[in-house]
Amino acid sequence: VKNLTSLGLRYENGKLLVLDQQLLPHEEKWLCCETPDQMVEIIKALKVRGAPLIGVAAALSLGHYKEQGASEAQLRIAARKLRDSRPTAVNLMTCIDRILSEVSQVTSVAEKIFEEDVELCEHMGLNGEHLINDGDHILTHCNTGGLATAGIGTALGVIRKAHEKGKRIHVYVDETRPLLQGARLTTWELQKLGIPYTLICDNMAASLMKKGKIQKIFLGADRVATNGDFANKIGTYSVAVIASYHKVPFYTVAPYTTIDFECSSGKDIPIEERNASEVKGVAGSFGSVQWAPGNAQACNPSFDVTPCELLTGMVLDKGFFSTQALQKGALLNLK
Amino acid sequence: VKNLTSLGLRYENGKLLVLDQQLLPHEEKWLCCETPDQMVEIIKALKVRGAPLIGVAAALSLGHYKEQGASEAQLRIAARKLRDSRPTAVNLMTCIDRILSEVSQVTSVAEKIFEEDVELCEHMGLNGEHLINDGDHILTHCNTGGLATAGIGTALGVIRKAHEKGKRIHVYVDETRPLLQGARLTTWELQKLGIPYTLICDNMAASLMKKGKIQKIFLGADRVATNGDFANKIGTYSVAVIASYHKVPFYTVAPYTTIDFECSSGKDIPIEERNASEVKGVAGSFGSVQWAPGNAQACNPSFDVTPCELLTGMVLDKGFFSTQALQKGALLNLK
Repeated sequence: VKNLTSLGLRYENGKLLVLDQQLLPHEEKWLCCETPDQMVEIIKALKVRGAPLIGVAAALSLGHYKEQGASEAQLRIAARKLRDSRPTAVNLMTCIDRILSEVSQVTSVAEKIFEEDVELCEHMGLNGEHLINDGDHILTHCNTGGLATAGIGTALGVIRKAHEKGKRIHVYVDETRPLLQGARLTTWELQKLGIPYTLICDNMAASLMKKGKIQKIFLGADRVATNGDFANKIGTYSVAVIASYHKVPFYTVAPYTTIDFECSSGKDIPIEERNASEVKGVAGSFGSVQWAPGNAQACNPSFDVTPCELLTGMVLDKGFFSTQALQKGALLNLK
Repeated sequence: VKNLTSLGLRYENGKLLVLDQQLLPHEEKWLCCETPDQMVEIIKALKVRGAPLIGVAAALSLGHYKEQGASEAQLRIAARKLRDSRPTAVNLMTCIDRILSEVSQVTSVAEKIFEEDVELCEHMGLNGEHLINDGDHILTHCNTGGLATAGIGTALGVIRKAHEKGKRIHVYVDETRPLLQGARLTTWELQKLGIPYTLICDNMAASLMKKGKIQKIFLGADRVATNGDFANKIGTYSVAVIASYHKVPFYTVAPYTTIDFECSSGKDIPIEERNASEVKGVAGSFGSVQWAPGNAQACNPSFDVTPCELLTGMVLDKGFFSTQALQKGALLNLK
């Protein structure tokens, strides 16, 4: 595998390196990932995250395994484990299926997946940037930037392109409980990019919209059904309902690798349920605290499903799709 | 001042004691409050909180001051400071105004305010309990129980009455970022009461409503305008919009002392803006962590305003008021 570099993932002189996103923003520590089994643990622990990036990381770990001399049978076993490491984001499955179909070419396919993801981000950025006006205040949820992809990101890539075009924008960042990807990662990326932002708690967005302080919403997707429904980080559906009520345009941004052509409706998307301890407190490089009573009952669905009808449109690498186009089955033509 | 006891406030043998709610649920520490100046600090630090309770606590601290020999002039100065200690909850101002109008009787007025609050909670409980059916799953936000009043609470008092009548109910508890009154205090109260509950992040409620898992919403108010608009803990407006979209009945519960007869619309309610550090992390007896980048920008409005039209109805100590009745000015008749 040749040398490859992104904000959260690197292949360097035969070594696969992952930026531990659980330690951000306080500590920037690169983990050396030597085996696919290690990558499974890294993905499960969310040390690497973001629907596109986990697909790319899994692919690279198989390419790396091949270079260490793994047989085709070993690669297939490792690929299965990686495929099952997280259930909701479909990019992981798409990438692994692509590798399994050309397992003798794993190294070059992995490189291609990385480089293609960079390209897809560029296209999404260009396809979405024109939706943003000078002076817009934009709400985003979770993290969809360079840390979530091999390139400039999905929704955050669109925002970045608008900023680079000189549009004066301001980003409201949902903290994104329980794992705080907004508060920890999106703030960190926006600071690096010099884009002005305000961090808010997830429950503040409605009141900001009522006051007319949010003009657009851009966020990502973990799996898109062919009818335009999509799963994304928990809280996305809440933002969609609130946006609809206030008539604030609401866009999701995703590469075609996030579309699940086997899935015709959001109802069929499996939702990962994570440990209740994540809701009862927080843990990270900043420390670990639990504020709820020790024996408190909690639930922790990691994603929710937003129906297509709540979207204003979807920005894909292939272009912009209005709700009407999505409802007419436009995504089926992309297969 | 005679001996008085509630879940979060006690007057005992000439001593005024406050349960430090910032330390809950992990530590139950009673603070001895010797002067009104100390009470101002206790209120500002949210060691005592809940719109009704801060009014009662302020009144008792003036009664206590009188017993220590304070002159009428000293009482008036202290009352002004207490009145200004928090800007949004109107009960504080109502209680202090009552005391200022009968400052020579401060001791008996303070006792009366405490005992009346206990009564008001009973009436709200009885007036709201019939809205809950056997088997209902109920969402609540922030803390509105025994810790927020001198009695059984406002919204949580209604829920408690339904439970005591033998209705099998389940409560979904919004954690209520940033200060986590739901995760820390409501869970603690529900556990003591033996009422089954599930703690959730604020951004999960919409998805639960979509799945039909929430039948009713009950929450409190910090100030009610005469047109039925009301201010309450940040995130309330978000719940109101989501409930309206899903057609889930949405009730606020408040004593008449929360009505601001000088305020004809929610637009006129001042909203307290607290320190951004509360959004960038958490702090309490459980520890103190900051997860956002050190120099992150954040905003922190502590309350939001929900317009009357999003209510299904308001439960007051005086009875139940439908949205239609509220919109026709029913609250003006209560003055």
